[in-house]
Amino acid sequence: MNKIVTFGEVMLRLSPTGYNRLFQNDNLQATFGGAELNVAVSLAEFGEDVVYVTKVPDNQIGDGAISNIRSFGIDTSAVIRGGSRLGIFFLEKGVNLRPSVCIYDRNYSSIQQSDVSEYDWDKIFDGAKWFHFTGITPALGENLVDICLKACKKAKEKGVTISCDLNYRSKLWEQETAAKTIKKFCPYIDICIANEEDAQNYFGLSAANTDVYSGVINKDGYENIAKELVEKYGFKYMAFTLRTSISASVNKWAGMLYDGDKCYFSKEYHIDHIVDRVGGGDSFGAGLIYSLINNYGAQESIEFAVAASALKHSIEGDFNRVTVKEVNDLLQGDASGRIKR
Amino acid sequence: MNKIVTFGEVMLRLSPTGYNRLFQNDNLQATFGGAELNVAVSLAEFGEDVVYVTKVPDNQIGDGAISNIRSFGIDTSAVIRGGSRLGIFFLEKGVNLRPSVCIYDRNYSSIQQSDVSEYDWDKIFDGAKWFHFTGITPALGENLVDICLKACKKAKEKGVTISCDLNYRSKLWEQETAAKTIKKFCPYIDICIANEEDAQNYFGLSAANTDVYSGVINKDGYENIAKELVEKYGFKYMAFTLRTSISASVNKWAGMLYDGDKCYFSKEYHIDHIVDRVGGGDSFGAGLIYSLINNYGAQESIEFAVAASALKHSIEGDFNRVTVKEVNDLLQGDASGRIKR
Amino acid sequence: MNKIVTFGEVMLRLSPTGYNRLFQNDNLQATFGGAELNVAVSLAEFGEDVVYVTKVPDNQIGDGAISNIRSFGIDTSAVIRGGSRLGIFFLEKGVNLRPSVCIYDRNYSSIQQSDVSEYDWDKIFDGAKWFHFTGITPALGENLVDICLKACKKAKEKGVTISCDLNYRSKLWEQETAAKTIKKFCPYIDICIANEEDAQNYFGLSAANTDVYSGVINKDGYENIAKELVEKYGFKYMAFTLRTSISASVNKWAGMLYDGDKCYFSKEYHIDHIVDRVGGGDSFGAGLIYSLINNYGAQESIEFAVAASALKHSIEGDFNRVTVKEVNDLLQGDASGRIKR
Amino acid sequence: MNKIVTFGEVMLRLSPTGYNRLFQNDNLQATFGGAELNVAVSLAEFGEDVVYVTKVPDNQIGDGAISNIRSFGIDTSAVIRGGSRLGIFFLEKGVNLRPSVCIYDRNYSSIQQSDVSEYDWDKIFDGAKWFHFTGITPALGENLVDICLKACKKAKEKGVTISCDLNYRSKLWEQETAAKTIKKFCPYIDICIANEEDAQNYFGLSAANTDVYSGVINKDGYENIAKELVEKYGFKYMAFTLRTSISASVNKWAGMLYDGDKCYFSKEYHIDHIVDRVGGGDSFGAGLIYSLINNYGAQESIEFAVAASALKHSIEGDFNRVTVKEVNDLLQGDASGRIKR
Amino acid sequence: MNKIVTFGEVMLRLSPTGYNRLFQNDNLQATFGGAELNVAVSLAEFGEDVVYVTKVPDNQIGDGAISNIRSFGIDTSAVIRGGSRLGIFFLEKGVNLRPSVCIYDRNYSSIQQSDVSEYDWDKIFDGAKWFHFTGITPALGENLVDICLKACKKAKEKGVTISCDLNYRSKLWEQETAAKTIKKFCPYIDICIANEEDAQNYFGLSAANTDVYSGVINKDGYENIAKELVEKYGFKYMAFTLRTSISASVNKWAGMLYDGDKCYFSKEYHIDHIVDRVGGGDSFGAGLIYSLINNYGAQESIEFAVAASALKHSIEGDFNRVTVKEVNDLLQGDASGRIKR
Amino acid sequence: MNKIVTFGEVMLRLSPTGYNRLFQNDNLQATFGGAELNVAVSLAEFGEDVVYVTKVPDNQIGDGAISNIRSFGIDTSAVIRGGSRLGIFFLEKGVNLRPSVCIYDRNYSSIQQSDVSEYDWDKIFDGAKWFHFTGITPALGENLVDICLKACKKAKEKGVTISCDLNYRSKLWEQETAAKTIKKFCPYIDICIANEEDAQNYFGLSAANTDVYSGVINKDGYENIAKELVEKYGFKYMAFTLRTSISASVNKWAGMLYDGDKCYFSKEYHIDHIVDRVGGGDSFGAGLIYSLINNYGAQESIEFAVAASALKHSIEGDFNRVTVKEVNDLLQGDASGRIKR
Repeated sequence: MNKIVTFGEVMLRLSPTGYNRLFQNDNLQATFGGAELNVAVSLAEFGEDVVYVTKVPDNQIGDGAISNIRSFGIDTSAVIRGGSRLGIFFLEKGVNLRPSVCIYDRNYSSIQQSDVSEYDWDKIFDGAKWFHFTGITPALGENLVDICLKACKKAKEKGVTISCDLNYRSKLWEQETAAKTIKKFCPYIDICIANEEDAQNYFGLSAANTDVYSGVINKDGYENIAKELVEKYGFKYMAFTLRTSISASVNKWAGMLYDGDKCYFSKEYHIDHIVDRVGGGDSFGAGLIYSLINNYGAQESIEFAVAASALKHSIEGDFNRVTVKEVNDLLQGDASGRIKR
Repeated sequence: MNKIVTFGEVMLRLSPTGYNRLFQNDNLQATFGGAELNVAVSLAEFGEDVVYVTKVPDNQIGDGAISNIRSFGIDTSAVIRGGSRLGIFFLEKGVNLRPSVCIYDRNYSSIQQSDVSEYDWDKIFDGAKWFHFTGITPALGENLVDICLKACKKAKEKGVTISCDLNYRSKLWEQETAAKTIKKFCPYIDICIANEEDAQNYFGLSAANTDVYSGVINKDGYENIAKELVEKYGFKYMAFTLRTSISASVNKWAGMLYDGDKCYFSKEYHIDHIVDRVGGGDSFGAGLIYSLINNYGAQESIEFAVAASALKHSIEGDFNRVTVKEVNDLLQGDASGRIKR
Repeated sequence: MNKIVTFGEVMLRLSPTGYNRLFQNDNLQATFGGAELNVAVSLAEFGEDVVYVTKVPDNQIGDGAISNIRSFGIDTSAVIRGGSRLGIFFLEKGVNLRPSVCIYDRNYSSIQQSDVSEYDWDKIFDGAKWFHFTGITPALGENLVDICLKACKKAKEKGVTISCDLNYRSKLWEQETAAKTIKKFCPYIDICIANEEDAQNYFGLSAANTDVYSGVINKDGYENIAKELVEKYGFKYMAFTLRTSISASVNKWAGMLYDGDKCYFSKEYHIDHIVDRVGGGDSFGAGLIYSLINNYGAQESIEFAVAASALKHSIEGDFNRVTVKEVNDLLQGDASGRIKR
Repeated sequence: MNKIVTFGEVMLRLSPTGYNRLFQNDNLQATFGGAELNVAVSLAEFGEDVVYVTKVPDNQIGDGAISNIRSFGIDTSAVIRGGSRLGIFFLEKGVNLRPSVCIYDRNYSSIQQSDVSEYDWDKIFDGAKWFHFTGITPALGENLVDICLKACKKAKEKGVTISCDLNYRSKLWEQETAAKTIKKFCPYIDICIANEEDAQNYFGLSAANTDVYSGVINKDGYENIAKELVEKYGFKYMAFTLRTSISASVNKWAGMLYDGDKCYFSKEYHIDHIVDRVGGGDSFGAGLIYSLINNYGAQESIEFAVAASALKHSIEGDFNRVTVKEVNDLLQGDASGRIKR
Repeated sequence: MNKIVTFGEVMLRLSPTGYNRLFQNDNLQATFGGAELNVAVSLAEFGEDVVYVTKVPDNQIGDGAISNIRSFGIDTSAVIRGGSRLGIFFLEKGVNLRPSVCIYDRNYSSIQQSDVSEYDWDKIFDGAKWFHFTGITPALGENLVDICLKACKKAKEKGVTISCDLNYRSKLWEQETAAKTIKKFCPYIDICIANEEDAQNYFGLSAANTDVYSGVINKDGYENIAKELVEKYGFKYMAFTLRTSISASVNKWAGMLYDGDKCYFSKEYHIDHIVDRVGGGDSFGAGLIYSLINNYGAQESIEFAVAASALKHSIEGDFNRVTVKEVNDLLQGDASGRIKR
Repeated sequence: MNKIVTFGEVMLRLSPTGYNRLFQNDNLQATFGGAELNVAVSLAEFGEDVVYVTKVPDNQIGDGAISNIRSFGIDTSAVIRGGSRLGIFFLEKGVNLRPSVCIYDRNYSSIQQSDVSEYDWDKIFDGAKWFHFTGITPALGENLVDICLKACKKAKEKGVTISCDLNYRSKLWEQETAAKTIKKFCPYIDICIANEEDAQNYFGLSAANTDVYSGVINKDGYENIAKELVEKYGFKYMAFTLRTSISASVNKWAGMLYDGDKCYFSKEYHIDHIVDRVGGGDSFGAGLIYSLINNYGAQESIEFAVAASALKHSIEGDFNRVTVKEVNDLLQGDASGRIKR
């Protein structure tokens, strides 16, 4: 068990049941999620010792979030209580030709209004081996940029490995601000995780001849981006998820890991009946952290990360509720879905 | 059919199923409600021609609210679209010794950030006979005080009767501000609706020897408050709801109407298995408006209002989904719950 | 095990969940019921050998009804298949001051359009000891009067005891027709079951000084009615249910049995949290048939019938899903609801 | 906003949850639907000013239908109340090799027993630009033929464009009667909508070398049918839906529009995970009406109609709950189902 | 109607709703199932006269099982009541890359602890034409081996045809014991049903060049196994199911029947959206028994068995809720899933 | 925060929804519970530092239990994994005259087959102030008697206070064995908790003139029992719950605490609409432990324990999900159930 810290915003996720549209009936599924929490949960399910840092209001909504996080065995003792509200997102699950729709109601949340002085990173990183955050957190406001930077500095100081999933969100910030801000973080990042759109949005780099809509992926293009970023920012690893969306229900899913020397491409999975793709990228990050922190080789690592996150597409909610054994079963070649009995 | 206008905030109401506590399971019932909307719905169910005025965001959450309001045949053409969010409240239904718990997440809502210039009261009141609002609306902010005052002035100008349910909410404003503000509205109010706590909170008046917790109600005390307020502010009618809470599941329920001359007390109902008491006071207001606008006598009016709102306690959600015929059946003495077949 | 035959209409019952009003949400509970079927199910749960006779359409709706009936171990081999449709009733469950509402959509049903030639009563009654029907069946049309009369004649011929629950339904026929028709059946009836309203509606007899709404019950009045009817029609037993509806959620429940000689009144139960009172009278009938067919004494019989049907008020749906042991537990004095563990 | 009138039967739709068979459990989803209502709802969702004409019983079942229709902002003021019952259909959703099953219980409905004198078409069409009905409505009985014919005459008189979806239903009428009857309507129809089976059933025309089961579609065949019908009956437009059912869960979906001069074929969509295909044809009709009434060109119109109705296959229930913006997003090439965030 | 007897263990099946993982929320679907019961239910749905023999505890759990079995019209009069408990299995439904997971909690069940003296096979087989059991039953313990052997002997004695589905379960017994035991039964078996894994596990025979994971099936290989087993054990028929699992959601499905002379291969179905594959093999067995007992030819029989069991994959739960007509519709070529209306 | 250890069996609790009987529909609510776990959860909700010790199988059923326990912030690091199964109980909730029914399927559970050598009490009690167990645990078998005794000895050795709720269960052991066994534990117990039936069953002592069924409670009788037991066994405190069951839905609830010197009786609560009384006694124990460990006086302690457990009757499931603040609100006199807003 390795101590891993993640930091970010947890939100209440409200989804209509099944494939209903919002308010088509009067039921909402109420779960919790958030990019860094999703990573935390997956790592806890893999058996790691995970600390999740956030701020939630001191009411029953905050209690509900903490209770849910705690159920995975995640350490919530560093969660700050207070502030005005918990962010919410409404999620309609897409299917076949209809895309998923995500409506954010996350403004004015406790974490967005939290102050750099509230976080005791020195104590939080005590004994930790890894720190993970995503581009969403600094996108939440200037104060969050400061908080994240302070966390990165402290982590570096204490020899904690830092991973960041770039996770560009156009609804949260302007591209220019995003680009300028993320570059402040790059020097601290050891493992950088992205998808092609992130590379484009933050760095203006795109894999020539790749079209994520049509499913044409140009491996060389990705290699070139990875090389360029690694050279510029000194990442130890640069990883890409490679998704081909055939429809909201059918995707191909693969990944690539560049270790500064060579590009390792994973097997590509055909996912024919997607249950919930929210958190797919996060589960890739968790798989990658798990394999790197446990000293897997580069090829092994990208295969594990991709298999883990391929399985995520079969799970309801933001969280990747699968074990290392289940990932290994898939890796060892059984993608046939035969009943285990 | 009389044209009746109500104005206020509509919120998304999220309740755990049954008597579960919040997040005890992952289902939430998603309905809509709000003091003035509850009055609007009840009046529409009684067959009146109702216009509801509010502001909701221009997204699927706002669409959901409007669709729900429209289903009752309420005219939503004056609803303003825009702003940041729809207010939310989480409601745990109480039972026996456990009280209902209401957690507001209503700050920063579209209506709270709306401007006086957005409302065209002249057009809204065209052909209207009645305008209803409650003390909650001015409690939402200074801009709402202005908007309400402008609505009242325009209503008066056009000969529209004005009713106000005082509805004091300690979570929304300070008592001092509340008292000062509400007094600005009193001169415009024709029909004033309150419960004992409102009289205390806004005007510092209490019915001597009444204890709402123990169920002792002093009729003379209420008469004195009514007289004092009517003398001071010139209300045409002053109405009180009289609730004795024996437990969260068992209440006694009655009302009083003072017409400037005489106090009329209704029959008291024993409600032995409360399904949902939220909106009970609003349904009283709707019953009173219905009976007064249809020229019922004072005794008849208070009886109708109390019977209508007694029935509300048997209905899930904020809205009083009962017809005039159903209220009349109860008034004509059948409270036995025998099956109609 | 005694072979008991019941005959009547099975309907699909559609109820909103919980205490919702019809179409308040988009879920309906779909069960089956009908006065004589309810009696059949209760007797089957008591361990008797029950045959249920009806006609249902030869489609999946009819299949669903038969499957449900069969699950109780009832013999459905005499059920006729064909005709146009299965009758439906929509039931809103009442609570506190709001009565249950029953909306029938039962016209044009297969049984209502069935013909006397379709029923082979000689075969059906082979080996039977008891035949039960209710006043609802002849109310369904002239053809049903003929079918019931033919059944009664054949039953009498074969020495089968006949019980009838008068069950007046004002929505099904005119009082005059009802009165005239039921009198044709009286000579065949051995055990006549009724409530005060039935006596009034069919025979113009009422228990002086009884008011079912206020809960005043005049025992002598019931005795007088029973005597008069027994003298006139030669019933072996005349039984009355005695319900005092305090609200839709709280009732008192008792019964009376007259054996031509003496009136036996049962204990009165206070039922404080009614789950579903539909089928309450039917479960009384089943309890009475069970105790008489098993040679209980008159006092024992009325106590069993009342205890069984008191328990019905705790069960969802039309059917009284309780065993003889559970009735006996209640009879032996444990009405305290202590957990069995 | 254009005023569009549709006329037909609204039914209560009862479906088991998920892929359950009827009565496999005790829950039914209760929604409403009907060919012309489905068109009305889709047009209202597109922002048009829609009037729906029908007759429903004056009870809570009828109220439920109206409340549901009203929630979409459809004008229900011309709905007639009265008669005996609301038609019902039970729908089992098919999946993979198992087809959907539809069991009608629609006989004796209020609209089926309605009289031509009840409809004030002159008033209904006041200010209207379009009238839509389908072949199902005249199939409901001779009186409905008269009502529809009268509506068509009045519409023509007032310069209202008329569209008709032929919608042959073998369970409702004999082919001969159907053929004879529909021909009475053809002279009034401006826009005729059909599928290949309709052409065969009403006019005995089939697209040579087309096999809807195997998915072979002969474009020339459809062109020939369209030409022949347009020549014979003078339709302004003849439109066909082109469905290839690979299984109950996977379909290909396209359409064709003939403007009297040229045939326009749409893009074909591969729909890989059908949620509910009921109302697919109706949503095509709505899309076509929307594009033609808003003066789209022929190619644009067929593309819009097909994209709109392709999306319908992702929506639960009869209604196509999608906006013009969502159809346009699909038209502009994003069928990948990537999450909007 | 032919009297068919099946014998085995019925279990309570507890499944999370939808594609949730166990305890992801607090709902479990509670149904019943078991290999031989699944065969019994399917045969009852086909209209046969089925007797199911098992032992269940004499409590409400046992009652629930019996009530469920009875609802299909299966004769449960030979079910023994008593013992300690009903076996349970928890089933997580797999989807796309995630396999279904089956967790057994079936130890110490009533049937597992039942004694050979409790079963009166002479009476049970009275009038019977067929006896079916599976390899699971003797796997439950030495006593069950004895009970099954006694049943086989009695069946043979009375001229009852015997079928056995080999159904190897690695969680229930060691391969060596299994192999030794099953060979005791072979001489009694007339119709032997298996999949490739069974042949391998019990007899060490595998179809050369077949890989069930990759979907390569070697027809000659199966023919060779069938021949070898038939020669050795004298089966009248040897049948194989041929499943190619592409994913948990997509399978190909076919079958083979060897009549001692020739191999008959069925059409292969592509099943693109599997609802529930548990019970797929059992439904094949039922289809085969149905067609053989009704004297279908070998090709017809294997086609019927495969079509019936292909449909099973569209049905929730263990049971194949389809009629002979529905199987025939699929056999007659309509696999397109067009709505029946 | 005080470290409190509890030890016992956690079971999966399966309940039909609402007031349904078992298998009346196909849904079961799956939660977890067990006497000592219920105490642990309530103490954790009160903010204490709770360690729960048990043994659960090393499969997903055991994982589910642990995840649920962890969600309350309870330390599960001492839970042993392994063994055959998790015990189950089926619970039908009673209502009005129908009692709750509890069907145990707990035999052969992992904890019941656990060995004394598996528990490291020395480590578990490190830093602990309190140890709680109940009479149910030694009732599970001789090995559990040994384990509990060893725990008690170690606790005494380390100065840990010991409380025991006698909790007699007639389904688990014979009265004679129970009496003999419990007496071995009495010398270790500091705080003994019981109800009248426990005193009777273990010690043959009954409160003269008390009838738990009729609601007559003889305070002197309880005082006498308490004195006798305290004298005999040296308990520091002896506490009794005093329940008067009027029906399954209405109870009176009070308690008594004897401190070796004086008897303190609490206020009696009238609970008019019981949601779930399972765990009522356990929540009393938790309330008592909380108040004693926090040095409340005797009167204060019994009032807190009774108020806390009165609230339990409003909560679904075994666990008392209430905070200290909520108990205090009730204690401070607000039992009226007025909405908090």
